[in-house]
Amino acid sequence: MVEKIFSVSKDKNPSEWFTEIIKTAELADVRYGVKGFLVFQPWSVESMEKMYVYLEKNLKARGHKKYWFPTVIPEKNFTLESDHVEGFIPEVFWVTGAGNEKFDEKLALRPTSETAFYSMFSTWIRSYKDLPFKTYQRANVFRYDTKATRPFLRDREFHWIETHCAFATEKDAYDNVIGDMMTTKEVVFDIYGVPTLVFKRPQWDKFPGADNTYGADAITPSGRVVQQPSTHMLGRNFSKPFGVTFTDENEKEQLAYLTCYGPCVSRMFASVVLTHGDDKGLKFPFEIAPLQVIIVPILADKEPKVLKAAEKIKAKLEAENISVEIDNSDKRPGEKYYYWEMKGVPLRIEVGPRDIAKDKALLFRRDTEKKKEVSIKTIVKEVITNGEDLSKNLKKIAETNFKGIIKDCKSIAEVKKIVGKGIARVSFCSCNLDGEKCATKIEKETGGEIRGTRIDVNEKASGKCIVCGKEAKEIIYVAKSY
Amino acid sequence: MVEKIFSVSKDKNPSEWFTEIIKTAELADVRYGVKGFLVFQPWSVESMEKMYVYLEKNLKARGHKKYWFPTVIPEKNFTLESDHVEGFIPEVFWVTGAGNEKFDEKLALRPTSETAFYSMFSTWIRSYKDLPFKTYQRANVFRYDTKATRPFLRDREFHWIETHCAFATEKDAYDNVIGDMMTTKEVVFDIYGVPTLVFKRPQWDKFPGADNTYGADAITPSGRVVQQPSTHMLGRNFSKPFGVTFTDENEKEQLAYLTCYGPCVSRMFASVVLTHGDDKGLKFPFEIAPLQVIIVPILADKEPKVLKAAEKIKAKLEAENISVEIDNSDKRPGEKYYYWEMKGVPLRIEVGPRDIAKDKALLFRRDTEKKKEVSIKTIVKEVITNGEDLSKNLKKIAETNFKGIIKDCKSIAEVKKIVGKGIARVSFCSCNLDGEKCATKIEKETGGEIRGTRIDVNEKASGKCIVCGKEAKEIIYVAKSY
Repeated sequence: MVEKIFSVSKDKNPSEWFTEIIKTAELADVRYGVKGFLVFQPWSVESMEKMYVYLEKNLKARGHKKYWFPTVIPEKNFTLESDHVEGFIPEVFWVTGAGNEKFDEKLALRPTSETAFYSMFSTWIRSYKDLPFKTYQRANVFRYDTKATRPFLRDREFHWIETHCAFATEKDAYDNVIGDMMTTKEVVFDIYGVPTLVFKRPQWDKFPGADNTYGADAITPSGRVVQQPSTHMLGRNFSKPFGVTFTDENEKEQLAYLTCYGPCVSRMFASVVLTHGDDKGLKFPFEIAPLQVIIVPILADKEPKVLKAAEKIKAKLEAENISVEIDNSDKRPGEKYYYWEMKGVPLRIEVGPRDIAKDKALLFRRDTEKKKEVSIKTIVKEVITNGEDLSKNLKKIAETNFKGIIKDCKSIAEVKKIVGKGIARVSFCSCNLDGEKCATKIEKETGGEIRGTRIDVNEKASGKCIVCGKEAKEIIYVAKSY
Repeated sequence: MVEKIFSVSKDKNPSEWFTEIIKTAELADVRYGVKGFLVFQPWSVESMEKMYVYLEKNLKARGHKKYWFPTVIPEKNFTLESDHVEGFIPEVFWVTGAGNEKFDEKLALRPTSETAFYSMFSTWIRSYKDLPFKTYQRANVFRYDTKATRPFLRDREFHWIETHCAFATEKDAYDNVIGDMMTTKEVVFDIYGVPTLVFKRPQWDKFPGADNTYGADAITPSGRVVQQPSTHMLGRNFSKPFGVTFTDENEKEQLAYLTCYGPCVSRMFASVVLTHGDDKGLKFPFEIAPLQVIIVPILADKEPKVLKAAEKIKAKLEAENISVEIDNSDKRPGEKYYYWEMKGVPLRIEVGPRDIAKDKALLFRRDTEKKKEVSIKTIVKEVITNGEDLSKNLKKIAETNFKGIIKDCKSIAEVKKIVGKGIARVSFCSCNLDGEKCATKIEKETGGEIRGTRIDVNEKASGKCIVCGKEAKEIIYVAKSY
């Protein structure tokens, strides 16, 4: 008998389950000694590195070029756009000196890099021929978040990608915002297997310095949401103070339209864990598993023949760029199975003396928990097919869990009943600033947050706002978030 | 006629040539506004990303696991090892607060991460069974260098890998140091094509907190050296203050032996540029070229047939993971050739209407500057073969340039004549601390630096120290460095 892995069931208490799995699966160590700063361990790092690969490939295909910008931003650049500085100043870490020297001007540890990129855009962009100008960087950013920190979900240093783009027209800029939302879909759902809803955020919840903010929310089986990449229509708010101008076809100087997009990989990793995991541990889609295949040799008598067969299978899979290891430890096979299932390895291959005699092996799938006999000759094909099928299956399960999670609510009391285990959909007066009072009331009384209005479906408001009773101009969604 | 690209010849003034090529080829922008902080542009970033891939693959094959550690280190950890703190304190950037809050304990922006890793090693390592414990991270680090900053060569934020490893015995630790030096050879020479010499550094030039420092120097054609990855035998200097202990096979508690290794990718990139470039611009080995193939369609009459053929070739190459672009701009073919040669693209394919009719194309090589006709049918094979051959050829040229660059010198006057255009080899009293006075004399009078004693060849000292005339115990090398 093996002991129970988690003190709680994921269904009953997903928050506590998440805290425990971070430790048990060695995803990150919270004992570093600086609040909100994590040591990310190899098991999460390898998966997040693969998540980055898909994200970067998608962005490059859309024409973004990769830069490495400095981690620090001079105070005077940081404070050029007034809404931006007001929104971020409380969260900025400051570098005030070096050695024994105190700087005349302090440096911000980037909480985001608009003010770094756009100061350079103004020197790089000259003419309409330079547009669109599409950039990105993979970076770690720093925010002195005053809310409770939570590993992967809300750290004070986190790992993301930020894109920064300039366009000649508002339409081009808006098309790019939609492109960003497509990237989210193509990567977060198609590859990571995490279903999302896409919102336009209310005016009181937009990015400091933006005209509008659009963002995706991942839906976890428990009915809570995890904020996914946001994309911001910055309009010309930053172009003006930073001087991002271009000469148009009529040789007239114009301000460029800017957009930015910030997929946070460490937080998306949390959604992957929360979406797919179960009471036995992690589950990873094949494409982003830190390890795709584990081989367990059944060595009743430590036969070198068995180990040799395992090595041969490993070499075959590695030749196809599949990540694979052999568990050669002294543990019993049952313990090994248990361990690697907890770690979420998609496929396990068991080889023993009797299997080899028949040129066979057993292939176990983490999603279905089923084993089947396969021929060693065709094992690469089997692994690829089953890997792809496992990813599809995880997506299907995630979509199924997700059905019925949205409930129409007619009153604050009904919303209160839903949030925490589902998402409430309600008629609402307005997502412009004049609706903020009603929003605050909902949030205060229900503990949920207003996520905004959907842009991935067409919804027409009708009836009255559930708070003030005025004519409803929007349909909004309310949910608890991690 | 095209204008001259550089105001100086690389042979005559490699320093100025290097400064100019950074701007001309858009490798990095120095106008960010914080001294020593660069904006790395796509052309260098894509090459450095590829350099990282080879380095990480090699380290993983040697058993290193990848971590992401925080960028900040609490002051109390940073100051635990006394030599280390003394050596680094003058160069540390300090984060002293966030928002409007001032911290009780300030945070160091990591100049290197020994004190971050070893504080965690002490909680992770328990028994001899946990050893060897081999880790690495890819990271940006910060040093408030007081010497003149130089893009790529000496920045205040730079991009590197650092490995940190723990061992049960001094022998295991030393074997790992040798392994690090092999990694340097296998990556820096075999892939990047940069010849190196490997030294044990003098005692007065070792890493703060180390017993010994070993390091490679790249030799540029001009006879100057560029410091390459160093590896440090830390012995048990850090294990003691950080409590990195393990229970040995006899259940006795022991201090672990630690080593670390720090290949600086942004500086290695500078060596690649300085080693292979010429008066026409950059040259990249095929494996680490930001772009491997450029296709120039010859469109006298903008024939769609030609463009289609180019697209087809592109698709074929991309299917083999070769990076390729079509230059579809309005420039004349000659201008395009000139531009992409300056950018160092290894191979160029020219296709015109007459070529297509014969199912042929022209293949140009940046190293030999020769064109040959190839069949479009076999173009993938041609590109791969010529790419490999180009890399080999660049290595051969680098090795040839490098011959005769080391000169035996019998006096300080002779050393003075050599350094700047070559490397002086001299008999020397001692690389222990008692030799520092003689070393200072050489450095002051010649402008060269003592690089140390070779560990990649067996050299026996004889005769007398060229400074003090005492018995020579070592053969040392003196060179100017970038």
